[in-house]
Amino acid sequence: MPSKAEIKSVAKLKQKKYRKESGLFVVEGIKLVNEIANNGLKVHKLFVTHQQAPHFKGHESVEKVTSAEMRQMSSMTTPPGLLAVVNLPEKIRSTSAKHILLVDAVSDPGNLGTLLRTADWFGIKTVILSENSTDAYNPKVVQASMGSLFRVKVVYADLVKTITELKTNGTAVLGAVLTGKNIYSYTFPERFALLLGSESHGIRPDLLSQCDEHITIPAFGNAESLNVAVSGAVILGEIKRQLTFKVQ
Amino acid sequence: MPSKAEIKSVAKLKQKKYRKESGLFVVEGIKLVNEIANNGLKVHKLFVTHQQAPHFKGHESVEKVTSAEMRQMSSMTTPPGLLAVVNLPEKIRSTSAKHILLVDAVSDPGNLGTLLRTADWFGIKTVILSENSTDAYNPKVVQASMGSLFRVKVVYADLVKTITELKTNGTAVLGAVLTGKNIYSYTFPERFALLLGSESHGIRPDLLSQCDEHITIPAFGNAESLNVAVSGAVILGEIKRQLTFKVQ
Repeated sequence: MPSKAEIKSVAKLKQKKYRKESGLFVVEGIKLVNEIANNGLKVHKLFVTHQQAPHFKGHESVEKVTSAEMRQMSSMTTPPGLLAVVNLPEKIRSTSAKHILLVDAVSDPGNLGTLLRTADWFGIKTVILSENSTDAYNPKVVQASMGSLFRVKVVYADLVKTITELKTNGTAVLGAVLTGKNIYSYTFPERFALLLGSESHGIRPDLLSQCDEHITIPAFGNAESLNVAVSGAVILGEIKRQLTFKVQ
Repeated sequence: MPSKAEIKSVAKLKQKKYRKESGLFVVEGIKLVNEIANNGLKVHKLFVTHQQAPHFKGHESVEKVTSAEMRQMSSMTTPPGLLAVVNLPEKIRSTSAKHILLVDAVSDPGNLGTLLRTADWFGIKTVILSENSTDAYNPKVVQASMGSLFRVKVVYADLVKTITELKTNGTAVLGAVLTGKNIYSYTFPERFALLLGSESHGIRPDLLSQCDEHITIPAFGNAESLNVAVSGAVILGEIKRQLTFKVQ
């Protein structure tokens, strides 16, 4: 049985500060817990409620908790009854992939989770986030990504430096803006990094001037803008259509 | 100065039950309030905090409230200080538009708001929701739609009957599923209704069998599915590309 202090220390992992300090984060529910290993990540501790315990017979390392203790540790409205404390991945640096998603200052955890899920769907294996973006190991991102957090490399980096590196290795940096080239007539290059801006301010000026091209989803109606995850999805879809089906 | 009972009755509009009873809903922030008239909707009452009041001099109908009263009425973490109580639109019935979005049992207000914003961007003027979908006049939908709620016709209807009507008037009903025709090789018809399913269960069987075609966004990676608003956006983008630029 875990001690009160232990339960409390897991509950604290809802805050970024404690995730950083301890090098741990939380994953809930059998489906996501089963995906942790996809990323080579290691489960540090596994907690299960007494009700769910019969499903985990034989797992020596599972610790049983009461529903009240689970609610204390869980970030979900209805805790699924299984909670893993996982070691954060080592810092990765990666600008060598052929297709990269760059995101500047995304602040909403739901948006980041949806972006990771979308990147994964479209086969983008590397997502590089500016250091002031929301933490990908925030419980809301973990849940909204539906396991894609464990399949996509998530890197935090200085985007100015990253873009400079990308350009020297021949990657075209494409900034999604409101007044750029129409994505449906633009011909996408084989090697690209798609840069998306923050929900409220778009791409900041110093990154904008570094882009090789500014691209835009044409508007057919009157909305002023699109949600950041939606924009990313529409552009990635068009890129994949062009590169895969070799049509303009 | 509004009475305590009046403040309380506005606060109650966070609940669907009271919106239905009173025929009223709430819109917050100057940007959204300015858009209310786009839809022919009428502001029933306008409340402003003492701090924001100087910006609304000369508006006779504005009622001043304290910050505490505003917080009680507001659904936002940081109330913008301007809140309109608006008359719900009359029930609309509409299956005559050339391009329609149909949504079955969407439950997350954020997803519905994002879908309305996306429909608006891609010039879809009519969105028909199954009667068990989340209420479009829920404060979270109002805010997430970024004003698109006032530019897009939102109709609640029995989707089985709606699809039957659509088919008799020559509209092709296209269901978005995980195992249908590839949207990048399918030729979209000029007159269509795109049907999206619920976040967790997809399109229900009786609607699925009514569809003229099942279509799919091809997966390039390992995610199991896409967010409903993201799927809608990718498909609408491809439809508009084909119909506008007349290319396959």
